Amino acid sequence: MRKRRSGAPPLEPVAGNGLLHRRALLRSGAMFAGALGSGASLTGAAAEPLTEPEWSQYPGEVTPPLQKPSRFEASVVRTLSNPKGEPRTQHARTPLQMLNGTITPNSLHFTILHSGIPDIDPAQHRFVIHGIVKQPLEFTVDALMRYPMVTRKHFVECGGNSAPMFSPEPIQAPLQALHGLVSCAEWTGVPLSTLLDEAGADPKAAWMLAEGADSLAVSRSVPMKKAYDDAIVALYQNGERLMPGNGYPMRLVLPGYEGNMNTKFLRRIKVVDQPAMTYYESRNYSPLLPDGNAYKFYFVCEVKSFITQPSFGTSLKAPGFYEISGIAYSGTGRITKVMVSADGGKSWAEAAVEGPVSPQAFTRFTMPWRWDGQPAVLTSRAWDDSGAVQPLRADFVALRGQANKVPNVLGFPNQHYNSLTAWGVESSGEIKHVYG
Amino acid sequence: MRKRRSGAPPLEPVAGNGLLHRRALLRSGAMFAGALGSGASLTGAAAEPLTEPEWSQYPGEVTPPLQKPSRFEASVVRTLSNPKGEPRTQHARTPLQMLNGTITPNSLHFTILHSGIPDIDPAQHRFVIHGIVKQPLEFTVDALMRYPMVTRKHFVECGGNSAPMFSPEPIQAPLQALHGLVSCAEWTGVPLSTLLDEAGADPKAAWMLAEGADSLAVSRSVPMKKAYDDAIVALYQNGERLMPGNGYPMRLVLPGYEGNMNTKFLRRIKVVDQPAMTYYESRNYSPLLPDGNAYKFYFVCEVKSFITQPSFGTSLKAPGFYEISGIAYSGTGRITKVMVSADGGKSWAEAAVEGPVSPQAFTRFTMPWRWDGQPAVLTSRAWDDSGAVQPLRADFVALRGQANKVPNVLGFPNQHYNSLTAWGVESSGEIKHVYG
Repeated sequence: MRKRRSGAPPLEPVAGNGLLHRRALLRSGAMFAGALGSGASLTGAAAEPLTEPEWSQYPGEVTPPLQKPSRFEASVVRTLSNPKGEPRTQHARTPLQMLNGTITPNSLHFTILHSGIPDIDPAQHRFVIHGIVKQPLEFTVDALMRYPMVTRKHFVECGGNSAPMFSPEPIQAPLQALHGLVSCAEWTGVPLSTLLDEAGADPKAAWMLAEGADSLAVSRSVPMKKAYDDAIVALYQNGERLMPGNGYPMRLVLPGYEGNMNTKFLRRIKVVDQPAMTYYESRNYSPLLPDGNAYKFYFVCEVKSFITQPSFGTSLKAPGFYEISGIAYSGTGRITKVMVSADGGKSWAEAAVEGPVSPQAFTRFTMPWRWDGQPAVLTSRAWDDSGAVQPLRADFVALRGQANKVPNVLGFPNQHYNSLTAWGVESSGEIKHVYG
Repeated sequence: MRKRRSGAPPLEPVAGNGLLHRRALLRSGAMFAGALGSGASLTGAAAEPLTEPEWSQYPGEVTPPLQKPSRFEASVVRTLSNPKGEPRTQHARTPLQMLNGTITPNSLHFTILHSGIPDIDPAQHRFVIHGIVKQPLEFTVDALMRYPMVTRKHFVECGGNSAPMFSPEPIQAPLQALHGLVSCAEWTGVPLSTLLDEAGADPKAAWMLAEGADSLAVSRSVPMKKAYDDAIVALYQNGERLMPGNGYPMRLVLPGYEGNMNTKFLRRIKVVDQPAMTYYESRNYSPLLPDGNAYKFYFVCEVKSFITQPSFGTSLKAPGFYEISGIAYSGTGRITKVMVSADGGKSWAEAAVEGPVSPQAFTRFTMPWRWDGQPAVLTSRAWDDSGAVQPLRADFVALRGQANKVPNVLGFPNQHYNSLTAWGVESSGEIKHVYG
């Protein structure tokens, strides 16, 4: 009646320090009774009667209109850089080390607000397209809701995500503190090209200025090519209307471009003939290089990956089987391959990648691993279909430099880190952040 | 520098009552200034200065650890059948008419609880595999977290969803009341086949009994073939741990099988040689047929679709362009085609389907439409890659019968409705539920 898995291959190693053949576990369903060592055997048929904890004996709680996570998951929250809302930027970092899959729940999507979260009445909000166009247009939210929409899964990442990785010594902090300024959602909205065509944008115009309705009117210059390629005026995030911190009632989504360009609270697009060199693009987002030159623009978040489980802050309780799991993504395309090493890069094996793989989207990779109780260094490296490959740390530092001290978010040279992240497993099971 | 869209085809009709060629809007980006009639023209270059509402003048609110929707979206909630938690079943229906894309946010995922939501401590919860196995096994949550996991996007639908469609007259109620017992999420968890292999399930065993830790110990019999094909012991829902109402800390996910079989709060799987004929499978989920016979089992939620926007409860404000948008899904495979009609089924045109299309998952379809202000009847019909097609209502009623009166959830013959849903647009713009 069903396929049997007898005679499956043993748990053969495929690279150093216990990386195992992934197909044995994930595709063939190997018969490996006892091999995992984490399901406890019951004595004989002593399963019945099952224990009856209190929740199995009495009726439970009343169903609410909106569900919330269990009270036992109270630690799964974003960490805040400015919890009192002092007059400076507020960061909220996603707890990627406690999440799985490829979607970031809306409650946990990272946010950066330079002047708090505006409380926008969607009935009053207006979005204008003007500048070098045949006919300037003004849209209400209701008007936009009538337009043809597309649905696309895309990550959004702050250009300053992973800034702590420029530190000369590895900072001992959870994944959330190192890489928590990236998240991934399914966005639904109107292709910007539709609206630009309706306004009759001038074909010679090379740039547009996108500006938000927040009190700083945060604005960025965007090449018109990107606007026509795949830009979306997004109204929905994972099926529901945008979160207030993610740009309610509408935002620009520029797949693969640094977060700040994905203008939140979008109130206008002005078609122009040259970049506006606004505060945020000339002061914040022009990364300096070691030789004193700077990138004028650095729009794309390049191919990147990191292991989310296990990672700093968790501790392996005993030798035996574990699954290594992580996220890969690239602003230049679809992830095609992720390699994992358990010996700090001396040997590598190809991880299983979950499909369907979408471009400019989180891709989950997994690798079976048997830890023998000895020190190990876990790391990952990703490739995409544009041919891009995640750079090794030595190459990255040679090109881009590193800080003289622990950098902060405006420090030098602190942006667009896309090199490797490594976790050192000690024989105690404790996990440290290391430069592998 | 960029592709221009000049010379694009006009907005040509492709079927009766104003259905438009989808490629003109979605693929070619037609130049259709003024055609949509919903973006308001500004006089000359009068866009500047922009208006400055209050939220553009003062700093906004403080970033919270967990984001919530805007206060202006307070109506986007699940509707409850038993809000006081009286000692009977509690339904919470998803507001599909207010959502878009293919993911149901966790806060809005539908739930049905027969005895409330158990408040389960994951550190105390145990999951047992026993019965006809070589070695009974007991798993803690922590033990399961070490196993190889997969991530899959799947809908879950109650067998009793759409029961109001068995009414002899169309019930005038929002989509949420008619079809709100289905949702779609990305589930991450351990393939059940891995755990069954580890326990050494007997190859001759044909069934398993899956049971929850809720106080009714809701249980269902599942064919072992399904267990080995694609069943998952899910721990994560859209990236975060399961919602309490959706089975925290672990549930069975049986892609395409009726919701009740996707056992929540999973506490045991007993491998057995025949179905257990439990209360829920023999009393609730054995649909009667008009001739007095009954389906012994009716596991699969078959191919289905409905239009979510526009739908009952919204009103078209003026003639002009609208996008028709809806959801298709099938328990027997991937959606391959959705046809839409604006004249109650006299003529049809193929909708745009958003990819990548996953099996047993929500698929969003869209169709451009110009409403001329005259009465119209909007409906949709879906196909999947198994060759299944959504049945027309006359054929469906002939086979499956309909109620003599408005049915309730335990009424006759009230399950697995997968025929069409039609919305009658009146010349006032008001939308009624009709049998097209």
